[in-house]
Amino acid sequence: MKRFLGILFFIILTIPLRAQEFSGNGNDISIILTNIKAFSKAYMDADYDTMMSLYAENAKIFPPGTSIISEIDNIRQRWILPKGVKVVYHNVIPKEITVLEDTAYDYGVYEGSSTDKDNNITEWKGKYVIVWKKINNEWRIYLDIWNRIQEQN
Amino acid sequence: MKRFLGILFFIILTIPLRAQEFSGNGNDISIILTNIKAFSKAYMDADYDTMMSLYAENAKIFPPGTSIISEIDNIRQRWILPKGVKVVYHNVIPKEITVLEDTAYDYGVYEGSSTDKDNNITEWKGKYVIVWKKINNEWRIYLDIWNRIQEQN
Repeated sequence: MKRFLGILFFIILTIPLRAQEFSGNGNDISIILTNIKAFSKAYMDADYDTMMSLYAENAKIFPPGTSIISEIDNIRQRWILPKGVKVVYHNVIPKEITVLEDTAYDYGVYEGSSTDKDNNITEWKGKYVIVWKKINNEWRIYLDIWNRIQEQN
Repeated sequence: MKRFLGILFFIILTIPLRAQEFSGNGNDISIILTNIKAFSKAYMDADYDTMMSLYAENAKIFPPGTSIISEIDNIRQRWILPKGVKVVYHNVIPKEITVLEDTAYDYGVYEGSSTDKDNNITEWKGKYVIVWKKINNEWRIYLDIWNRIQEQN
């Protein structure tokens, strides 16, 4: 019984952490979720063409420590990994996706890890807000801003 | 003439930096602009009641180095300045405000400076994305995420 209560308590505690709120047309939500997954996969594959295809042409990204970056070529440069560095894990967990006609916003957390040429592993966790635009029936990232959950050392 | 060309060149160079795109109902834009100014003033005045009144009850803030912060009491705690620290300057420059019925998003840059108890001045510059919600005819900050333009030392 004690154990059962312990498990129940654990489940109740973790529910809010896993809560996801999706609002809007189911098909739109589904495309956005697919694109979020595609972004992580492309980043792990260092497939910058696919990554860039997920951004709107007039997208802006807001990486920590830089000015606002616009123009797809500049955005690509920001994402290109240094030689020898590989993203071995990348996962985005949206907490809310809200679709408003041809615009949507989404926020959540992300986590990842990378290895360098000496096989040192770096892990990170952060949070983000994305504004999406529906362009020619495809959902594209328009604004992409994030920061770490713990300060970098 | 040389001087005139110099001034003209300076004006042309600075135009893109100042470009602002506002789209949506003028009254909504005007309220959002007023709220952006009110936030900076309240922060300089350490007037946390006014700052909190600009957030939606279910607002979330995304400060660098922390988890997503929800609940107004927690958001207030995050903004309260350490003893002896005063924000002497705070200015937010929105680059785009787009109103979509009862939701709006806005992005831009901010700059500020603060003094500590020994009168040391710290200056900072960053960029942000805000998602606004119109609640009871008032525009409130729902999502508030930012990061620095230059990494902190």
